[in-house]
Amino acid sequence: MLNANNIKIPLTVPAGAREEYIKNYLDITKESGRLMLFAGDQKIEHLNNDFVGDNIAKEDADPIHLFNIASQAKIGVFATQLGLVSRYGEDFKDVPYLIKINSKTNLIKKDQADPKSDLLNTVEQVAEFKKTSGLNILGIGYTVYLGSIYESEMLREAAQAIYKSHQHGLISVIWAYPRGKAVDNEKDAHLIAGAVGAMACLGADFVKVNVPKQDGIEPQELLKEVTQAGGRTKVVCAGGSAANPQEFLQALHNQIHTANVAGNATGRNIHQKSLDQAVRFTNAIYGITVENISVEDALKIYNSK
Amino acid sequence: MLNANNIKIPLTVPAGAREEYIKNYLDITKESGRLMLFAGDQKIEHLNNDFVGDNIAKEDADPIHLFNIASQAKIGVFATQLGLVSRYGEDFKDVPYLIKINSKTNLIKKDQADPKSDLLNTVEQVAEFKKTSGLNILGIGYTVYLGSIYESEMLREAAQAIYKSHQHGLISVIWAYPRGKAVDNEKDAHLIAGAVGAMACLGADFVKVNVPKQDGIEPQELLKEVTQAGGRTKVVCAGGSAANPQEFLQALHNQIHTANVAGNATGRNIHQKSLDQAVRFTNAIYGITVENISVEDALKIYNSK
Amino acid sequence: MLNANNIKIPLTVPAGAREEYIKNYLDITKESGRLMLFAGDQKIEHLNNDFVGDNIAKEDADPIHLFNIASQAKIGVFATQLGLVSRYGEDFKDVPYLIKINSKTNLIKKDQADPKSDLLNTVEQVAEFKKTSGLNILGIGYTVYLGSIYESEMLREAAQAIYKSHQHGLISVIWAYPRGKAVDNEKDAHLIAGAVGAMACLGADFVKVNVPKQDGIEPQELLKEVTQAGGRTKVVCAGGSAANPQEFLQALHNQIHTANVAGNATGRNIHQKSLDQAVRFTNAIYGITVENISVEDALKIYNSK
Amino acid sequence: MLNANNIKIPLTVPAGAREEYIKNYLDITKESGRLMLFAGDQKIEHLNNDFVGDNIAKEDADPIHLFNIASQAKIGVFATQLGLVSRYGEDFKDVPYLIKINSKTNLIKKDQADPKSDLLNTVEQVAEFKKTSGLNILGIGYTVYLGSIYESEMLREAAQAIYKSHQHGLISVIWAYPRGKAVDNEKDAHLIAGAVGAMACLGADFVKVNVPKQDGIEPQELLKEVTQAGGRTKVVCAGGSAANPQEFLQALHNQIHTANVAGNATGRNIHQKSLDQAVRFTNAIYGITVENISVEDALKIYNSK
Amino acid sequence: MLNANNIKIPLTVPAGAREEYIKNYLDITKESGRLMLFAGDQKIEHLNNDFVGDNIAKEDADPIHLFNIASQAKIGVFATQLGLVSRYGEDFKDVPYLIKINSKTNLIKKDQADPKSDLLNTVEQVAEFKKTSGLNILGIGYTVYLGSIYESEMLREAAQAIYKSHQHGLISVIWAYPRGKAVDNEKDAHLIAGAVGAMACLGADFVKVNVPKQDGIEPQELLKEVTQAGGRTKVVCAGGSAANPQEFLQALHNQIHTANVAGNATGRNIHQKSLDQAVRFTNAIYGITVENISVEDALKIYNSK
Repeated sequence: MLNANNIKIPLTVPAGAREEYIKNYLDITKESGRLMLFAGDQKIEHLNNDFVGDNIAKEDADPIHLFNIASQAKIGVFATQLGLVSRYGEDFKDVPYLIKINSKTNLIKKDQADPKSDLLNTVEQVAEFKKTSGLNILGIGYTVYLGSIYESEMLREAAQAIYKSHQHGLISVIWAYPRGKAVDNEKDAHLIAGAVGAMACLGADFVKVNVPKQDGIEPQELLKEVTQAGGRTKVVCAGGSAANPQEFLQALHNQIHTANVAGNATGRNIHQKSLDQAVRFTNAIYGITVENISVEDALKIYNSK
Repeated sequence: MLNANNIKIPLTVPAGAREEYIKNYLDITKESGRLMLFAGDQKIEHLNNDFVGDNIAKEDADPIHLFNIASQAKIGVFATQLGLVSRYGEDFKDVPYLIKINSKTNLIKKDQADPKSDLLNTVEQVAEFKKTSGLNILGIGYTVYLGSIYESEMLREAAQAIYKSHQHGLISVIWAYPRGKAVDNEKDAHLIAGAVGAMACLGADFVKVNVPKQDGIEPQELLKEVTQAGGRTKVVCAGGSAANPQEFLQALHNQIHTANVAGNATGRNIHQKSLDQAVRFTNAIYGITVENISVEDALKIYNSK
Repeated sequence: MLNANNIKIPLTVPAGAREEYIKNYLDITKESGRLMLFAGDQKIEHLNNDFVGDNIAKEDADPIHLFNIASQAKIGVFATQLGLVSRYGEDFKDVPYLIKINSKTNLIKKDQADPKSDLLNTVEQVAEFKKTSGLNILGIGYTVYLGSIYESEMLREAAQAIYKSHQHGLISVIWAYPRGKAVDNEKDAHLIAGAVGAMACLGADFVKVNVPKQDGIEPQELLKEVTQAGGRTKVVCAGGSAANPQEFLQALHNQIHTANVAGNATGRNIHQKSLDQAVRFTNAIYGITVENISVEDALKIYNSK
Repeated sequence: MLNANNIKIPLTVPAGAREEYIKNYLDITKESGRLMLFAGDQKIEHLNNDFVGDNIAKEDADPIHLFNIASQAKIGVFATQLGLVSRYGEDFKDVPYLIKINSKTNLIKKDQADPKSDLLNTVEQVAEFKKTSGLNILGIGYTVYLGSIYESEMLREAAQAIYKSHQHGLISVIWAYPRGKAVDNEKDAHLIAGAVGAMACLGADFVKVNVPKQDGIEPQELLKEVTQAGGRTKVVCAGGSAANPQEFLQALHNQIHTANVAGNATGRNIHQKSLDQAVRFTNAIYGITVENISVEDALKIYNSK
Repeated sequence: MLNANNIKIPLTVPAGAREEYIKNYLDITKESGRLMLFAGDQKIEHLNNDFVGDNIAKEDADPIHLFNIASQAKIGVFATQLGLVSRYGEDFKDVPYLIKINSKTNLIKKDQADPKSDLLNTVEQVAEFKKTSGLNILGIGYTVYLGSIYESEMLREAAQAIYKSHQHGLISVIWAYPRGKAVDNEKDAHLIAGAVGAMACLGADFVKVNVPKQDGIEPQELLKEVTQAGGRTKVVCAGGSAANPQEFLQALHNQIHTANVAGNATGRNIHQKSLDQAVRFTNAIYGITVENISVEDALKIYNSK
């Protein structure tokens, strides 16, 4: 179990913010050292594609669905943009939030231009918003596209976001995706490991990556290089597009117990379900991630009334 | 009826600005929760095309025409650029203003370059101008072109404009248009819904969109996905190019009562008419939007001497 | 006659700067409401082409020629860059100055790249320079190229220049030219009217435009749409390249009395003449613009020994 | 031997920072005037390529390996990014650090775009981090790519980084590489000498260059022009990709004693070895660089059990 | 003879800096009104090409050669970058310095991209450096490439550099070169005159230009238009690539006495000689420029043992 005495606090956290950092780190990992992040930043990233369509629960069309899930399910933290939090936060004061400070839409395709995602809000604004709103904001999120011709600006912004989040005792989670004309295979394990190592050099607390893929090798085997590259910077895997619940939970269990993955960041697999189903599935994910339960027990939670 | 107790105030409005925000929100919606926005930013956006030409009243050639209408008709707010307000405001102190803080001309066509529209004035300047001029300025407006290769800069500026307007208790209205080489169909309902969802993530109070179009489906049906995507961020529809008054009013009524649209932003359909006609037409629009009257009654207002 | 009571002061002029604005406005228009601007910014804009060549007086090769004219002739204001004023001002303390704060050379042609003209000096520096130099600086000038792919940056800089000049009680004059790959006909009256309307939206005091041209229609007829579009933002016409004095004066008279043009901005037609001739021609222009004399009387001034 | 009295302190070090500069300069060179820099910035620069692969020790996969070496071997300074130091520094307080303030990945190849590497952290942040962390930070590192179309921005950032590091008494080390479409032969001695001269004009303390190559001429002969061009700005050579230890040490000895090279910056040749081997090899390098021992004695250190 | 009473002080020099400006102006021109500038900024501009090669003295390979010349010869001012001055200044306290605040390398050729040269150090840093170093810094230098597609940024930076140097009483020297895809003939006299006129509009004290060339016309005849265009902004000619001493001195004499050129900026023709020869040649140049001696007497100085 993590506690105030065994957490490794990065030295970019100044003396006056160490208590706040410890509190946020224990809170976001529920003292497990692992992160269950409910990802809800897709209304910009994927526009309405993830919220309305075949096999998507009707309730998902309204943004309040995300807050209902975040409020009723067990989670480490709910990640979305500051603006959306500003409009629902007062009615969902119990939710632990992580503010995603950059985002882009999916309209510009890879063959038109390399990805670029500017800051929407500064870390200082997040810290100020935390204070004036009284919300339980635990950290910030930022996406970096390595290999994009805009990589350089995003590396700078990411380094600054991490540095400044630590100044305020906030936890930093970096979404790190190799992407752009220069990137042939986004799912290459060696490349993803490199991305994680790079984020470690920026001092990130957690890095969210896509699960690597290679014919004939299990993802959890591929992930070993990835988590090792991070060292004290912990790796969480993206949930990806909708999947069969049992397979999803088994994969998650494998990632954690075989490859030392420190959690998951799941969005669509949760919020595209009806509220009740979404809550049960989130709790199942939380069980494996934070409570160390078996896949069997997690499935029981999901299938419970 | 909206009042100080049932307004959902975004948490980006700090304690010291809540009273101002409530006042502005009630004022701009006339306590109806709906917005009748008289759009007068076209002298930059469309240059002189909207003001001189066939079927355009001679009076429209002079900018004072806009102020005369805004002053004599019932409106929620009159939207135009700060500079124009600075030159006429002293003689039109009764008008409620919304300052459009970015604008571009229509000279560069889509096949030459993607749209880009920089800030003309900062929100801080609007707030300062409100104080020193004594004018009744209720909010700010900003245009975002999603899918433009400059999307990233505009998303950032929009997020900042909303955040800062709330710091001053001002209402934020975002003109959200998918546009650029990456956008095939600007009138696609699913895409427009996505744009509205994205603006909700930035915390906008209102989003102005173009009415979606699809063969065989009524616009008000298409708009249902759009307004749902916004959640607590309200949707108003653009009036578009000149239309038959009866059809215009019927469409507006449908948008509001079938699709939960929260108002309209009308420019050319108003100011291209002579002052008297423009005032009557504005009052008809206002009747449907704010006073909840029928299309029939609205037409009576328009046709009244 | 204009006076402190009938001037329309833009609301961007704060209480503390109103007296200064009134003084400057009365001074620059000599209480006539019309502007005779002696344009001397071409040493950057046209390099040495306007100053040395056939039919150009030898004296024009030296920059002091501009100051000699400005000092000895009747003018509303002499417009040039801050740096040039800094080197001659001490010897020409009587001249009323307008500081042109952006300029570009003519080396890059339209088919190579769209025009772009950055700020050389900020309005704050102009205000500071006015104070420390003790010179009689009445306003600032800025050039916008509408339709350039850099339009957006220039619109922003122009809006800011106008806003800030008013903060200091200075008069703002915008050179507004449609130009760039997107512009087919720079002399189209409807387009020029649009440019003037756009500048009105930025709050400019005066807009300098090129005289529109269309086969079979007199320029003064074309200008009617232009001046109407400006409303309270006044229009002055560029003098253009060298012309026959009588035709020049007649055209100016027509512009003012038929189309409500509020003055002129003349450079080459003045300074390419010898000092004596230049002074007499300037006085003739001034006569028509400010003193409301006839073309006949103006010609007498020009032809007087 | 260097001491406080014979160090040439650059005049950009203000009076209040001279003592700090002297301390750092003596410390980083161990009073030898030569620099043994252990380079550990490759987790961004080369992603995971340098850390996992054939002939690379398994331990190198985890970032802690770098710190273990830096802590147990004799070095002048260990160079890596601020973020990585922030996560391990508390457990490695004895290590002398140099913060590499810019870095880019190797994903974008030369034929796609010229290299560009933005600041990750400012010098001010390094100085602040030094104070709040209590770590022994001796200097900063920055990479410039001369000949890149982004050269101009990087020259500016480098000049500023050097100037500001001196303000804080920190030592500046510039990685200077000619690279980009304009550069035919990155290993040309005359070009590398030019790069070093340019960095001398920016006031750098040390410049890290690649060893020049030319058929038929020994590198140490080529390096003579290079070190002369630097004058008081000292030159250190990059260790390059993995090499035979004996050849490596002999080359280093030649560089120092024939060409007046002032040290080395070695990464992969050290950390791709197991901890024990890496420590012994580092000590051998240190012996030649700082302790002036022979190649023979250095090899004894490396081969000692 | 110039003195405190007959110097034309630009009005951008505030009251508090006038004494400093006068001192610097008299010092840099040795009260002659003419400038002998020893140019030593080529280690960035031309890399090592100017310092090592056939017909170049061996001593020129080490940067100290420049300081030795500047210290032992008669000069108006020695121009080089701040960083280089920071490393040698303490041993050369008697040298009058001019800090070149921007520079670029020669690696990118005209057919690849237009020239761009960013600020390395701000004028404020130069002023601060002057104070803390105690060095005799008289002014700043900046290069503008007119006709480059980056002209606009460089015009702005030049205008600001001049304005700010005057705020601190420093003399401003602008290197003005027409260059880029838009420029056909860099040596065209009319174009160079235009460049000088443009720099006068920025308020420069001195402009350094290349000597114009045209078949059948003597350079000193061509230069007449150039110096006239500058008015109170004085023109100095670049020394250019290595030339026969007698021809060099004769050309200089012609420039000064026929075309009113106010001095010269000479680099390679001086420092590519051995120290002794360089000192004598510098003194010869100084004799013609500042002491008004004949070519014959200057040659005697150069040829004296």
